[in-house]
Amino acid sequence: MAGSTLGTIFKITTWGESHGPALGVVIDGCPSGLSLDESQIQQFLNRRKPGQTAIATPRKEDDCVKILSGIFEGKTTGAPISMMVENTSQRSHDYSQISSCYRPGHADFTFDEKYGFRDYRGGGRSSGRETIGRVAAGAVASLILGQLGITLTTYTRSIGPITIDPLRFDPSCILSTPTAMPDPIASKEAEEYLKEAMASFDSVGGTIECQVHGLPSGLGDPVFEKLDANLAKAFLSVGAVKAFEIGEGCNASQLKGSENNDGFCIQEGKITKRTNHSGGTLGGISDGSPLLLRAHVKPTPSIFSEQQTVNANKEEVSIKIKGRHDPIIVPRAVVVVEAMTALTLLDALLLNMTAKLDSVRTFYGK
Amino acid sequence: MAGSTLGTIFKITTWGESHGPALGVVIDGCPSGLSLDESQIQQFLNRRKPGQTAIATPRKEDDCVKILSGIFEGKTTGAPISMMVENTSQRSHDYSQISSCYRPGHADFTFDEKYGFRDYRGGGRSSGRETIGRVAAGAVASLILGQLGITLTTYTRSIGPITIDPLRFDPSCILSTPTAMPDPIASKEAEEYLKEAMASFDSVGGTIECQVHGLPSGLGDPVFEKLDANLAKAFLSVGAVKAFEIGEGCNASQLKGSENNDGFCIQEGKITKRTNHSGGTLGGISDGSPLLLRAHVKPTPSIFSEQQTVNANKEEVSIKIKGRHDPIIVPRAVVVVEAMTALTLLDALLLNMTAKLDSVRTFYGK
Amino acid sequence: MAGSTLGTIFKITTWGESHGPALGVVIDGCPSGLSLDESQIQQFLNRRKPGQTAIATPRKEDDCVKILSGIFEGKTTGAPISMMVENTSQRSHDYSQISSCYRPGHADFTFDEKYGFRDYRGGGRSSGRETIGRVAAGAVASLILGQLGITLTTYTRSIGPITIDPLRFDPSCILSTPTAMPDPIASKEAEEYLKEAMASFDSVGGTIECQVHGLPSGLGDPVFEKLDANLAKAFLSVGAVKAFEIGEGCNASQLKGSENNDGFCIQEGKITKRTNHSGGTLGGISDGSPLLLRAHVKPTPSIFSEQQTVNANKEEVSIKIKGRHDPIIVPRAVVVVEAMTALTLLDALLLNMTAKLDSVRTFYGK
Amino acid sequence: MAGSTLGTIFKITTWGESHGPALGVVIDGCPSGLSLDESQIQQFLNRRKPGQTAIATPRKEDDCVKILSGIFEGKTTGAPISMMVENTSQRSHDYSQISSCYRPGHADFTFDEKYGFRDYRGGGRSSGRETIGRVAAGAVASLILGQLGITLTTYTRSIGPITIDPLRFDPSCILSTPTAMPDPIASKEAEEYLKEAMASFDSVGGTIECQVHGLPSGLGDPVFEKLDANLAKAFLSVGAVKAFEIGEGCNASQLKGSENNDGFCIQEGKITKRTNHSGGTLGGISDGSPLLLRAHVKPTPSIFSEQQTVNANKEEVSIKIKGRHDPIIVPRAVVVVEAMTALTLLDALLLNMTAKLDSVRTFYGK
Repeated sequence: MAGSTLGTIFKITTWGESHGPALGVVIDGCPSGLSLDESQIQQFLNRRKPGQTAIATPRKEDDCVKILSGIFEGKTTGAPISMMVENTSQRSHDYSQISSCYRPGHADFTFDEKYGFRDYRGGGRSSGRETIGRVAAGAVASLILGQLGITLTTYTRSIGPITIDPLRFDPSCILSTPTAMPDPIASKEAEEYLKEAMASFDSVGGTIECQVHGLPSGLGDPVFEKLDANLAKAFLSVGAVKAFEIGEGCNASQLKGSENNDGFCIQEGKITKRTNHSGGTLGGISDGSPLLLRAHVKPTPSIFSEQQTVNANKEEVSIKIKGRHDPIIVPRAVVVVEAMTALTLLDALLLNMTAKLDSVRTFYGK
Repeated sequence: MAGSTLGTIFKITTWGESHGPALGVVIDGCPSGLSLDESQIQQFLNRRKPGQTAIATPRKEDDCVKILSGIFEGKTTGAPISMMVENTSQRSHDYSQISSCYRPGHADFTFDEKYGFRDYRGGGRSSGRETIGRVAAGAVASLILGQLGITLTTYTRSIGPITIDPLRFDPSCILSTPTAMPDPIASKEAEEYLKEAMASFDSVGGTIECQVHGLPSGLGDPVFEKLDANLAKAFLSVGAVKAFEIGEGCNASQLKGSENNDGFCIQEGKITKRTNHSGGTLGGISDGSPLLLRAHVKPTPSIFSEQQTVNANKEEVSIKIKGRHDPIIVPRAVVVVEAMTALTLLDALLLNMTAKLDSVRTFYGK
Repeated sequence: MAGSTLGTIFKITTWGESHGPALGVVIDGCPSGLSLDESQIQQFLNRRKPGQTAIATPRKEDDCVKILSGIFEGKTTGAPISMMVENTSQRSHDYSQISSCYRPGHADFTFDEKYGFRDYRGGGRSSGRETIGRVAAGAVASLILGQLGITLTTYTRSIGPITIDPLRFDPSCILSTPTAMPDPIASKEAEEYLKEAMASFDSVGGTIECQVHGLPSGLGDPVFEKLDANLAKAFLSVGAVKAFEIGEGCNASQLKGSENNDGFCIQEGKITKRTNHSGGTLGGISDGSPLLLRAHVKPTPSIFSEQQTVNANKEEVSIKIKGRHDPIIVPRAVVVVEAMTALTLLDALLLNMTAKLDSVRTFYGK
Repeated sequence: MAGSTLGTIFKITTWGESHGPALGVVIDGCPSGLSLDESQIQQFLNRRKPGQTAIATPRKEDDCVKILSGIFEGKTTGAPISMMVENTSQRSHDYSQISSCYRPGHADFTFDEKYGFRDYRGGGRSSGRETIGRVAAGAVASLILGQLGITLTTYTRSIGPITIDPLRFDPSCILSTPTAMPDPIASKEAEEYLKEAMASFDSVGGTIECQVHGLPSGLGDPVFEKLDANLAKAFLSVGAVKAFEIGEGCNASQLKGSENNDGFCIQEGKITKRTNHSGGTLGGISDGSPLLLRAHVKPTPSIFSEQQTVNANKEEVSIKIKGRHDPIIVPRAVVVVEAMTALTLLDALLLNMTAKLDSVRTFYGK
């Protein structure tokens, strides 16, 4: 199960299972000199905490982060930053029923196929709790991006058929609505929609959007390490994400060149684009305009109605999933998508410092 | 411009510009013992060759591949396979007009921003010709996948508003229609649509679909190296791709859990899924059902109508692009998407061999 | 401070400082199905524990390892294995004197140069305690190697001028002599030599040797990833190691080809070498004969006599180092060198499984 | 045969066999803006050219390099630099005798074990000609280092028992003596020694030393990516190198702390070391003093006297190697060791630019 490490310079490694003693992350390659304490990380983690609203799982978990290394006198030293959250609210017996059968839409079957057996408690490593490490690391990345004037705004764009109205867009609502929608009216409608789905023991999907402002041009490398390619990977690495779009995204395939091209112009003495159909990159490199990214998230696979499936003995069985499950993944995944975006951007930003010989000479004073 | 290397075990490095002496690729980590000659590679390259139809650029390029290393007595030795295609049909003067101005939708501006200057001849490294190396390497990957019973079917799914009809799906047409559509009627309609776009000096977008059959379960790693995450990266690394979907893709965000979940069942003694909304992966690991992948491709940015833009001196100018350009990227990109899929799958397939201790013991006879 | 991650498939990331709350390691890519509990790791850690003998630092540290993830029902699941040792015996005040001055032979100056400041408590990240993570991960690697019939024997070969006598070589003494010498007589002499050095407030160097038996042929890749190249890196990554040798090592530069070449012969129906001047590799690939590796370790830089140096204010000062320091690094570094060898070999062993197409076909049943 | 790629930011991939059509290298990640033409690369390649002296193989090979990509108007663009040397002087029939038997000291046996068969012509991928790509890439790295005031001086330190006298050290002789010794008197003696060895159909070993002046402090990362660890790997990746030393090297194991520690002092207002036993690094990070590196090289395994060995059919046979072989590897390997050093230093130098948050902020103007 290689695959728990991401990044070239700002490199993170996550670990931990839903029902083990703890989960965590190690950041290797964080620049020295960043002021950092646990409360800053905790703020990000709180955004993915369960048990906060009627539409989220009623588990109460504190998810308190501890920093175990890499900080001295309140600043990052350049050494690996190890962060850990202890699991405190696992109820293993909730999951014993599914130890031998393959839940539809879950990774039970594929883990068994790949590894021969699996930690079936709460999804083990494929649990949504795995994202704790990503969010903790993403918090650090976001803090650095913030110091460079780069801001990320991430929110629920749609839940089932209900989409936010751009005219009502209010980013201050993202943290206050239970849906993480920046539109209080759409949010209310979505809550109703979710309640109906829950009443019929069902779940729903939705979309997450991320806007990045203040990003300098030049990030990303041509060919395989295009900025949008790495963002697509980062997004699809989040469980339940089934599609990625940048800028016009899917719609670009319906447009003509004359509609989709962004002409350049001069604004306040700087080269900029008249429109932003591209969503902030050209040729895989950031072009100085805002990034516009979108994730399509499938409905929670754990539903409470009866489902037909099989068990490890190759017998067809029907199951009714018990336990505590969100009827929608999207609102709690918003901060995960933001974290993945921040991690990807920061790594590209650090790599970009070495693109020109002139920069190298300036750095070394030659 | 790091970023020209892809893969962990089956690792490729592409090089070359549109108007340099040659383009090529080095494959490092190809298993030994594969029968390989240039004609097998050439078949794949021919699928991306220009100058073949009325809807493609009239450039005549032979794009003949030479294998320079890694083969002995007709078989791969395990050593790096270096392949090269010489550029024979460049007409540099076609491009001199755009040396100082930033074409909308192209990477001219971002390359200048990142590197301080650029090889402006024919797009240089951001040219579509860069994909020659990918396709040559993808051919080798495809040959190995083929020996393992894995087949890739890639085709144009839509051009502008015209989409293939699944009831008329005929894979034998992919290589015979100029659109690479597996539906001759849709293809004819699309050709008409393209001619109209060309008549108004415009270009159009479209979608590419890839189906993979015969893929074993177990490929891909949880967390960051999910199979779908790496496929998303591979797809978005192709210039002009603006969205990636797997299985239901964007549509998953509109579905309910009861609609989107794929129940398992037993067929011919094997565990399989009743439906395939997931598109072939669960938890980032292949589940043994077919992969269903989709790329959304923007319209060709080079259009022949006049466009407003700026030059490197920060002056607003209008340009009319001359030269030879396809009015649509999709048909020639089909084989590129197939190549990227093959490369990603083979790398995951090799990595997967080390997942279980039992496999390691069997390999070493202990 | 990228640089805390090692390995391609069996990948480890260490973290932690001498005087932080804890130190640890995450292993990503461990094959599933290995029986593993904390006592097996603890055995390896105990070999590097301080406070055990007259010639080691009198600090008493328990260095008790906890496994936080990756194990289910006593077996590795394929998920990352996170292991942690809490720091219990730090006395930060011991080190306050050196917060502002650069100790000769230590990394104080270079950390300040690179990162702008440093965690000066006990060497921070450059402390010997950093090796706890390596040894814990190396224990897991060694257990897997053991299941494949591969055994590592690592010991102190020399301390200052005193070298073990091959005729008295007794591996059972490695764990029982305080010097880790497999020769009780040399060990006694070395203890005397060390006491004299301590009496004059000085320290001494020595050499560590590692023999690997049972290694299959074929490990290592030609060119940059030669097995011996990665072993050299692994050895030199251990603080205080100043030279690496394989087989005849330095002596090879004095030999003639007729003396240094190892002729092949047939023994019990198998191809083997008559001699082993090469030390177990040919062309960077293991040849089936034992590996013979040697590390040369400098004397402990912390000595108790007065030394001339400078402080961060660029003033020349004299210091007398206080605190608790081993007069020799070698005996406690033996298990670290063994761990680094095991980690390097296991990674090469896993990578090697993909070298032949025939192996790939066999694995996938085609 | 993964293993042909080296480096994290300045990344090279070599390819080609002794008797294939060509050999080459791709550099990915070279900063843009370096003035570069083929003659600069050729100068480095000429230093490893055979056929120049009585003590080198009489093959006449031009080894003319062509640059195929990555340069525009005389400068690097940031795109991959592909360089190729065509093989012009292969005489395959020279090697046919050894197609079925395993030459002592060569990689014939291990390649067969790993890959199932091998390109037996002239050693194939394990030929010394593989280093052409390294030297071409090392030339580019050296040119960048030169612009930063960093100079590498590499030479033959000893041949068999004959060592240069430091009092006669004259770097201007390195390129003029056939031995690459910077001491004309030792060089003459070594030539005599070599002639005797050749007369008795034998070969000899020797040592190569590399000094690096002008290196800034701060290069290298703690833990696994120590500068000396990566240099050790780079050195041992050169075929025939059996030991690596930095600074006092092996001798450090014989010294006391009081002898081996380098006290700091102030010189011309800068912190420097009074002595340089460490050889230029502390804690794996460059300390601003010169690097002192040493490689021990085994004698050429191809000797013309009869040797006992086996063939692939597991029969014991005796062979007499024919063909053209240098009686010593060292003089022609000097430039290879220099190239490997330059490549390793440049990669560390680029990575180091991201160590401090202050540097990141300065780069992005925040």
